[in-house]
Amino acid sequence: MVLEWGKKFSVRSKAMKASAIRELLKLVDNPEIISLAGGMPDPTLFPKKVLAEISRDIFLNHGNKALQYGATEGIPALREALVNIGIEEGIQNLAKENLIVTTASQQGLDLAGKVFIDPGDAIIVEAPSYVGGLQAFRAYEADFITVPLDNDGIKTDILEGKLREAKENGVNVKFMYLIPNFQNPSGVTLSFERRKKILELSHQYDVPIIEDDPYGEIRFEGEKIPSLVEMDNIGNVIALRTFSKILAPGLRLGWMIADKEAINKFVIAKQGSDLCSPSSTQYIAYEFIRQGHLQQYLELVRQTYKKKKDLMLQAIEKYFPKEAEWTKPEGGMFIWVTLPDYVDTTEMFKEAIEEKVAYVIGSAFYPRGEDKHHMRLNFSLPTPEQIDEGIKRLGILLKKKIH
Amino acid sequence: MVLEWGKKFSVRSKAMKASAIRELLKLVDNPEIISLAGGMPDPTLFPKKVLAEISRDIFLNHGNKALQYGATEGIPALREALVNIGIEEGIQNLAKENLIVTTASQQGLDLAGKVFIDPGDAIIVEAPSYVGGLQAFRAYEADFITVPLDNDGIKTDILEGKLREAKENGVNVKFMYLIPNFQNPSGVTLSFERRKKILELSHQYDVPIIEDDPYGEIRFEGEKIPSLVEMDNIGNVIALRTFSKILAPGLRLGWMIADKEAINKFVIAKQGSDLCSPSSTQYIAYEFIRQGHLQQYLELVRQTYKKKKDLMLQAIEKYFPKEAEWTKPEGGMFIWVTLPDYVDTTEMFKEAIEEKVAYVIGSAFYPRGEDKHHMRLNFSLPTPEQIDEGIKRLGILLKKKIH
Repeated sequence: MVLEWGKKFSVRSKAMKASAIRELLKLVDNPEIISLAGGMPDPTLFPKKVLAEISRDIFLNHGNKALQYGATEGIPALREALVNIGIEEGIQNLAKENLIVTTASQQGLDLAGKVFIDPGDAIIVEAPSYVGGLQAFRAYEADFITVPLDNDGIKTDILEGKLREAKENGVNVKFMYLIPNFQNPSGVTLSFERRKKILELSHQYDVPIIEDDPYGEIRFEGEKIPSLVEMDNIGNVIALRTFSKILAPGLRLGWMIADKEAINKFVIAKQGSDLCSPSSTQYIAYEFIRQGHLQQYLELVRQTYKKKKDLMLQAIEKYFPKEAEWTKPEGGMFIWVTLPDYVDTTEMFKEAIEEKVAYVIGSAFYPRGEDKHHMRLNFSLPTPEQIDEGIKRLGILLKKKIH
Repeated sequence: MVLEWGKKFSVRSKAMKASAIRELLKLVDNPEIISLAGGMPDPTLFPKKVLAEISRDIFLNHGNKALQYGATEGIPALREALVNIGIEEGIQNLAKENLIVTTASQQGLDLAGKVFIDPGDAIIVEAPSYVGGLQAFRAYEADFITVPLDNDGIKTDILEGKLREAKENGVNVKFMYLIPNFQNPSGVTLSFERRKKILELSHQYDVPIIEDDPYGEIRFEGEKIPSLVEMDNIGNVIALRTFSKILAPGLRLGWMIADKEAINKFVIAKQGSDLCSPSSTQYIAYEFIRQGHLQQYLELVRQTYKKKKDLMLQAIEKYFPKEAEWTKPEGGMFIWVTLPDYVDTTEMFKEAIEEKVAYVIGSAFYPRGEDKHHMRLNFSLPTPEQIDEGIKRLGILLKKKIH
């Protein structure tokens, strides 16, 4: 008998969707297409020489440990270094029991889903929000409550209303998922006043916060705003951090900071998920920090991304129709474009590919795909020439759509 | 208000248990204790010089890709190399659409749980079975149906009875989880005749098989038996393989081979779990294979582990009471000891620690912890001197327990 795999899959797996971005990006596998679609760091900046020497040294001189299984929580030296970075940032009382190393932030999202979400539980997300977060939580059959953003981040008045409504209706809200700095996809940053308000609401309604902050260190303009985990001194906040943007995604390393009880659950869940994150790359990342390369690399990233962001904004000014609006990020990797609501960016995508330019359709960032007239543009990966030419191609196409 | 984390955790997370092994191993964190407990390869064998040169070259000359995000399915060169290895092994019709790179085998187990198990679904496991497998499936609220082993592996007559019974009772059996070669913890190998019978049962009862085979290449005696995935030409079998035992666990790399439809679901599930496995270590593993180091390293591992296995068996003969029985593995890393049923190895564990020797308690390998009179001994990690002295210490303790 030939097995029908479809009959064996879990209910959960039927709720999973292939990332719309990844499906669309398959169309982009053509070197002539200028991709403003991805969310990748600029690989020409990666500190290759330094990492080459460090990795050689690690495997030669610390190979017995770097090539072996490590503790689920992460290797002790890296955890200590990350605790010290957190304390310097202002998270008082941070101890190593508050920190677990993860297989990059995406695993942090998955562990949060695994540890908190029962089918039908509600979680609150920004609209739009990070595709990978939606995907991780959807796999645990979460119901999404969406709260819109403006230039100061999630609208706390609407958030408060939704929390009140959920409480009145007996809806179990397991957490709020927020990306406060240079949000993916919108590029906007949550204001200090709203951060304070959100923490008040978290305590009032007894709802934890997942603070996903991959880009916080890539601020190239404006003043740093304290993180939620710092403001609440851990408290109700589960902070997700990653090496993907401050060093390199190919190491697959991130970390979570949270209350000890929550970290303990994440450790148990992680044992079942992958036992431990790569010892090899943990040793490499630790040595990179210990030798003092991190700040210099971050400075290079900030300078380069600022130039690219400025270039992209100038090109948008020059080529886009006057009916378009866009965000002006102070950091991160993305600009969010809002078009008149009759412009359907999903429909338009194939035409863009024909014109040899790619972006991410706005609807990918909404749990119910309800949005049609936005696009996300990435400025970290393309070269300056590609940015100008890509925006030019998009502008020509957009002007045809405006009536 | 101080948040009560316990009230926020999912039902699933309440079913998760910290690995008994890991909890016990915390007691072993003392260099004077001889540990026969772990499941780690011998780190002195790791090909450190080769990996040091490879990693240096990869970061210097291929850093743009090796440090970047990679495809969820795995980097193309490594997938192709693994497909070729599979075809050489005898898996005809194996194509790259049948293969996904995972963050080691443990992630394969987690993805299988995520994609197949709804709460209350049954899965069939060997008794005893691998702790990490039980842990991965428990996180998705599986019900375990256990089938005992003898020296030829899982008892297929009992397996058939349990499958029939499940069918009659309308129990949804999602898969059988089997470790056919040098099973963890028992060290026994599934006979060819039983492999044939299991495949017949799989097709007759429409139940997929997860073939976890971390040790197949570490056969140091006897004749190789074809794998289930080879015998069924993929068919109903989902094969899990890992670099942890054939190269190094610290790379966190493994792979799954299965029907394309199942692989496609694993890819979607993996996007939510960790986006992709480390590109850096995938490039390193690929280059290790391409340069032809794998067979030489495996030969060293086989020779060394055979010597250690022989030493441990000799020491057991010499020091253990005559009432004890034990398996004689033809490969892998473990020997399984059966004691008279009044000897409780869990109770005895603290005394063993006082005598400065550690093993893994048998009950850890049973989903309901029902077994008390077994212990798992590892021979890959300890030195020859530690093997002799450790078994001697254990033998003295065991002789006191026999009456």
